[in-house]
This record gives sequence, C-alpha cells and structure tokens, in this order.
Amino acid sequence: MKLSIVSKVLSLLAAIISLFMLWPLWWAYIDGSRDLVPIIKSMVIGLMVASFLYLFGRKNTYEELGIKEAFAVVTLSWVLASVIGGLPFLFNGTVPTFTDAFFEAMSGFTTTGASVLTDIESNPRGILFWRDLTHWLGGMGIIVLSLAILPFLGVGGMQLYKAEVPGPIPEKLTPRVQQTALLLWGVYVFLSALETLFLWLGGMNMFESLTHTFGTMATGGFSPLNSSIGQYNSAYFDWVIIIFMFLAGANFALHYFMLRGKFDAWWKDEEFLFYTKVILFGIVTITAFLVFNGTYGNLLDSVRYAAFQVVSITTTTGYVTADYEQWPFYAQYLLLGLMFVGGCAGSTGGGIKNLRIMVLFRHVKAELQRLLHPKSMVHVRVGGNVVGRDIIASVTAFFILYIGLFAIFALIMAGFGLDVVSSIASVAATLGNIGPGLGVVGPVKNYATVPLAGKWVLSLCMLLGRLEIYTVIMLILPGTWKR
Amino acid sequence: MKLSIVSKVLSLLAAIISLFMLWPLWWAYIDGSRDLVPIIKSMVIGLMVASFLYLFGRKNTYEELGIKEAFAVVTLSWVLASVIGGLPFLFNGTVPTFTDAFFEAMSGFTTTGASVLTDIESNPRGILFWRDLTHWLGGMGIIVLSLAILPFLGVGGMQLYKAEVPGPIPEKLTPRVQQTALLLWGVYVFLSALETLFLWLGGMNMFESLTHTFGTMATGGFSPLNSSIGQYNSAYFDWVIIIFMFLAGANFALHYFMLRGKFDAWWKDEEFLFYTKVILFGIVTITAFLVFNGTYGNLLDSVRYAAFQVVSITTTTGYVTADYEQWPFYAQYLLLGLMFVGGCAGSTGGGIKNLRIMVLFRHVKAELQRLLHPKSMVHVRVGGNVVGRDIIASVTAFFILYIGLFAIFALIMAGFGLDVVSSIASVAATLGNIGPGLGVVGPVKNYATVPLAGKWVLSLCMLLGRLEIYTVIMLILPGTWKR
Repeated sequence: MKLSIVSKVLSLLAAIISLFMLWPLWWAYIDGSRDLVPIIKSMVIGLMVASFLYLFGRKNTYEELGIKEAFAVVTLSWVLASVIGGLPFLFNGTVPTFTDAFFEAMSGFTTTGASVLTDIESNPRGILFWRDLTHWLGGMGIIVLSLAILPFLGVGGMQLYKAEVPGPIPEKLTPRVQQTALLLWGVYVFLSALETLFLWLGGMNMFESLTHTFGTMATGGFSPLNSSIGQYNSAYFDWVIIIFMFLAGANFALHYFMLRGKFDAWWKDEEFLFYTKVILFGIVTITAFLVFNGTYGNLLDSVRYAAFQVVSITTTTGYVTADYEQWPFYAQYLLLGLMFVGGCAGSTGGGIKNLRIMVLFRHVKAELQRLLHPKSMVHVRVGGNVVGRDIIASVTAFFILYIGLFAIFALIMAGFGLDVVSSIASVAATLGNIGPGLGVVGPVKNYATVPLAGKWVLSLCMLLGRLEIYTVIMLILPGTWKR
Repeated sequence: MKLSIVSKVLSLLAAIISLFMLWPLWWAYIDGSRDLVPIIKSMVIGLMVASFLYLFGRKNTYEELGIKEAFAVVTLSWVLASVIGGLPFLFNGTVPTFTDAFFEAMSGFTTTGASVLTDIESNPRGILFWRDLTHWLGGMGIIVLSLAILPFLGVGGMQLYKAEVPGPIPEKLTPRVQQTALLLWGVYVFLSALETLFLWLGGMNMFESLTHTFGTMATGGFSPLNSSIGQYNSAYFDWVIIIFMFLAGANFALHYFMLRGKFDAWWKDEEFLFYTKVILFGIVTITAFLVFNGTYGNLLDSVRYAAFQVVSITTTTGYVTADYEQWPFYAQYLLLGLMFVGGCAGSTGGGIKNLRIMVLFRHVKAELQRLLHPKSMVHVRVGGNVVGRDIIASVTAFFILYIGLFAIFALIMAGFGLDVVSSIASVAATLGNIGPGLGVVGPVKNYATVPLAGKWVLSLCMLLGRLEIYTVIMLILPGTWKR
C-alpha cells in the first residue's frame, strides 16, 4: 500500500468537497444568517486538510494507483468527506456532538437520509442547503464526480471507478472512464434541472425545489421541512417526486440512451422491467390493504400514498408522506423487505439491487433444474447473455455478506438496547441507504435517540451499503496492507 | 412420474405410522382413559388407507423408483403421516378442527414443536404420548425409519435416502443405505435409552421421562406439561436435557464413531467445533446480559437459563425454562438469529445447518481473496477437503431459497394480520423447525391464535424446513411431472 499516493488523491477530493461549500455559503450570505461563519470555518479547515494531504503525497504520480490503493482511496474519501462535511453542522450548533455531525454528513453523502435533527426548520438555509447538497454530491458517487472534474487522474481512474461503482456485471458507457463519468454526471444534472423546474412551476420556492431535487435525484431523503414531503399535502408535488425517485432508482445508462433517442432502452432492459414489476407489486398490494383497511377515504389517495412510500423505500430515497407505522402490518413488513431489494445497478439507489436479486433468483432456478437433470448444463442468463460462474459466485458472496452483516449489526444494535424491530429496521435502513425505518427510527421519528456508539455502527452500515461492501472490507483485510 | 409405485411405497409408510399407535394405545389401555377409542379409530383408518394405497400400486417393483418418484414419495409420506397422525387429536377432541390436527401432527413429525394446544395437561396420557412419539419417529427421518425396518426397498432406497437427507455434503456411514439407516437408528435408540434413564434416575416418572426424551432426542420440543421443562424448576433435569439436546443437534455419524471407540471423532470434526463455538458464544454473551441486567439473582442461574434457551433454540428443539421475551433485547434478537443457524448436518435438528453456514462463510472469504488477487485460484476447504464449485453453488442456492422463502412466508403471515415481529418469528420458528418464536407465538404462548389459513402456511414451512426445501419444491416443478 503506497500511502503517499492515497494521500495525494484524497487531497483533491477534500478540496472539491470544501469548494462546494461556496454554494451554501451564498445562501447564508444573502440571508445574512448566523451560519455564515461556521460554513467559512469549515471550508477553510477542509482546504487546509487538503493542502496537508497534498504536500504529503506531492511527489507521486497518478500512475502508481493500484487496486489496493484504489480500495483505500475510495473508502477513505467517503470518510474524509463526512468528517469535513459534518463540520458546518457542528460549528453551527445544529448537532450537539462530533458523532452526530459525522453521522449526519455520512448519511448525506451516502444518500441515506437518516437524520439526528429533531427540529430541522430551526436551522438557517445555508446549513439546510449544505445538508441536501451532500446528498447530491454523493448520489452519483464522489469519486465519479472527481473523475468527471479531474481528467488527469488517468489510468488509476479506472481502478477508482471500479472500487466505487463495483456493480454486479461490469458496464461502461464508453471505454474511457473519465468520459463515462462525465456522461453520467451530465444525465444527472439534466434530470436534476428538470425536476427543479417541475417543482418550481408547481409553486415551490427555488430553495425548496433545489433541496428536494437533491434529495430525490440522489435517492437521499433529507428535506428542509420537519414533516418531509408530507408537509405540502399536494398531489402534484407527490407525483412529480414519485416519478423522479423512480428515475433516480433506475440505471442512468438507460436514461442516457433514452436522451440519445433510443426510446426502447428502458423496456428492453430486463432489470428495468423487474424493478418496475417489484414497485407495481408493492403499490397494488399495499393499496389493496389500505382500501380494505379504510385507512384513507378514497382509492385515489390510497394509491398516491402507497405509491409514494413504495417508490421512496424501494429506490432507497426515504422521503415520507405518511406514517406507515399506522398502516396494516402487511405494508410495514413489505416496506421493510423492499429496503433489501433497493434500486437498479447504475442508479443512485442502494440496497442489494434488482440486478443481483435477478441473478440470485435465476441461480436458484438453475440449481433446481440441475437436481432433476444432474448431467445437463444449465446456464444463468440475463438480457440474453450467459452470466459466468465467476459473476454468480461474486453475486452470491455479496448476498451472503449483505445478509450476514445485516444480522451481525442488528445484533449489535440490540446490544445497545434497541428493541427487535428497531434493531432490524435501523440496520436495514442504513445498510440499504434508505433512512427511515420502523420503531424508534420510524418515519415520523429520527436517529437522535440512538446511543452514540450505535450512531458509529450505523455510520459504518451506511458506508458499507453505499460502497457495496467489498471495497470497505478490503481495507481491513490484512492482505491489503502486505507489501 | 409413476404414481403407482409412489402409492405402493406410501402404503408401507402409512402402515408403519399406524402400527406405532399401538404404543400410545397401551398407555390409554392401562389408564382406561377416554382416548382409547379415538386412537383405535385412527389406527384402523390409517391401516385402511395403507391397504388401498397398496392395492393401487401392488403390481410395481421397487426398482422402478427413480429420482422423481423419490421426491414425490418423501414429500407425500410426510404429508400422509401428518394426516394420519393428526387423527387421534381430532377424534379425541384435543383440537377443534382438522387444520389444527394436521398442524399439530406436522409440527410433531417435523420435530418443530409448535403447538395449538392451550391446556396440554387436560389431555389423557395416550394422546400426549402419541404427540411426543411423532417427534421421535420424525426425528431420525420417517423414510430412514422405513429403510431400517424394510430392507427390501433395495436400489430405490438410495434415492429415497438422498431425497429425505439431502445434506450439503454427501456422507454415508456404509455403502449400503439400509445399513446406514439401521446404524443411525441404533445410535438414536441408544442415546434415547440413556436420556430416559438419566431423567428417570432424577425422579421423573417413566411417562414423562419417555416423552421428554422423545422431545429432546428428536430436537422436537413437545412436552406433556403446560410450562414445558420450566415446570420442574430443577437444575438436574435442565442440565441433563441441555446435554442431550446438544448431542441431538450434532451429527449422529460422529456419535456412532465415538461409540465405536474413536474418541476424537467430535473434536476432529470442523462442523462440531463450529457448532460448539456458536453455542458457547450464545451462552456467554446472553449470560453477560442477564447478569448485567440483574434478571436472575446469581451467576449460576443466569448460566443455566441462558444455556438451556440457547441450546434449545440452536438445536431447534424449542423446550423452554424461561420467558425469554422478558430478557434484554440482545438475547431475544440473538435467539431469533440462532433459529436460522440450527443444528449440524446429520443431526435431528433443523435450520440452515452449521456446515452450510461454514461453507457460505468460506465462500465469501475466497471471493474477497479473489478480489485482491484476481488471477489466483482460491479453494474452499472443509475438514481438509476441497469443496467443489457444484457443492458451493448448491449451498448458496439453498441459502438464497431459505432466506427468500422466509421473506415471502413472513409477508404472507403479515398479510394475515400478524405484527412484524410475530410474522418474522413464526416463520423463522417453523421453517427452522424450532417451535416457540416471539410475539404472539412467544415462549409462553402458542400457535392457537394464528388464523386457520396461517396454520396451513406454517405447516408448509415446517415441511419445507424438515426436508431442506429442495425435495418439496421439486414436487411442484412442472418438469417433475413431464414424461
């Protein structure tokens, strides 16, 4: 492990994150609010950290970035971003401890949306804008962002890209990774602009249009409002956000092809169809339970609330318009299950991902057929292509790790005194980068009451979930540190 | 699928089950109790069913038993056993409906121990003896029992054996399957006799010594007492049962080797060591929480109650001496997690099994190493032997199926109106063949309040769990029914 080159690349990232604080600073400036100094202080500290890191590694060239260094850079960059990104919350007094600041920033960058704030609206706009901007920066990947901004990272860039966007099946838009990063960010910016426009045209002010767009397109879930999107009680806003959450949870490569005029890109993609079916199943069955239960007065409202919560949870956004803990147990349990499914590969969403679920399902089907016909060769196919045994092995290992880590972390949370449902839900909601769970971390509650040590565990869950586990685990394997 | 040979083999099994009713009949006879006629009626009906099935398939020879027929025989024999085995409960008025009778018998044969009886002790001894005898007959496998009793099943016997005892890694004591079946039943009978003796020497009457032995050695969990083993409040009985539950949850092939004088058989077996470590981890950490929480007055009691519950749940027995829902959440959650781990391969216990967990764990480790060294060959080893890719694929598929079916069945239970914890726990406790769960099916409650349709779903879970999923699923695959 060459620590000096790791240090050099981290410095670039720290600088980018710090410079993006200019945007919330602008809100603080025009409001003349008390968060002006805290944000400036954070930015200065961030840039100082960047400078030190740069000095330490300045002699190295980017070509020295190997696979081990890539794992280190990616994992540490998310940790560093959360340390720097949490400073404004700490300096402004938004949160009481460094732990809370780190948790809130990690929740932001990983697009989880789990919050420790009890009264969100008591904060000035600069702070709230920064809180949602962390979502947006993390949404498409902060390494992918760096690659798009810093084309000189060269060969090492590919290693970094693979470590941040592992994905079950390798896919790139173009052979050059910088080009891919730029195209993905282009689509992301375009869709974000579109959503902002739709929200603004519906009567939302520009500040809230932007912050909610950040929360939607990144499948994050932070809102500057205490009662999330439910506070508007507007069918128009609900449906606009449902549509954009749905898009954010799908593969951005498909959106790119759509924008390039290949209008069948969505419907020719097996994962997109699977993802759509999962969401429709959730909406239809939960609507049926809501209607049967008489939760809402009419069918239209039932569909709207069911659709919002199902899309929000499945895409791992975490915005809420209803306290689903008051819904029938079927709905609560299904939402908990959908947290594990998550979005599509190549989306800003988390969870296990639909593509992996499909591969797992077909792997089981192939095994069953092999039992009946022991001597036959049964291939697993996705999108017409045979999925190799190496990829299947990698996907099954991912699933085992995901379920195993979930079980272990939930045990730790139960050890901190959380009840069984809250332990399960808090880990499912952070490992899957969703945000709201059930019990003490339910949709109308927050993570403020979780013990400090528990917040560190859940922060680790968010990081593991966002980087799809492997990259983070590699860093603690002894083999990574051997010469 | 040749239905007539399936019918012929099923007839033998129905006859065996029916004839075993002579034993409870004897208790009813010496007590002169009201269950005499119900048991006779059940036996007669069982023998009549056996005769009809035999007539339908009498022309066939056992050599015609292929792989498809084996799947059908095994699955249907457990269903048929539960139908016939439930008749005494129904005729005696022990349960109100056929559903309940079937549920109770399925719970018995599959050694689950989930009960719908609210006042167990109000039943005569014949009925209660039969209830625990179903455990004992099912414990080592009713097909294995048939193979031991009916040596003429010949070549088809191997197919049957593989369908009932799939196991992650093929293992036989002797090349001849009938011989293996006989040896396993020999060890089972020997250990059962030993436990009965120990309980009887401790002052338990012969009836309760036998029934509790059946419940222990089969990792079943039915007790003729309303408050299970806790009713005795005896450290001696607790520890005797803890030891025999532990033995019942381990591989019986190892016990056979021990009895043959190979005294290092246990400690040379990787799975046995893993299983022991899992149980020790559970006992130590739960004891720590109980002591810290001040649940019991002293350390000795804390160890005793922790050990009993941990061993009972991990081995999938389900006897209780404490209402663990009053324990710290850590203990509740860990016990829920241990339901998934279960016993060892070749034991009478259920769950995923320790050997599979080990293979899964090592598969993940190999994948992580492959990430660091993409070109290296990393083998998964258990007990010094390389585990082939086919076996790993089969184990991962089993795990995915287990978790997937668990998630789906729990969703269905939530649809029937059970709260989230109860939905999860009822399916975990039946799919893993444990018995008591959490919530409405907690340790001091029972399954009587579960809706009728839910009892059918949970009966299916018990069957799937006992036959390790594949065999049952094969029966509903269309390919199995094609010519």
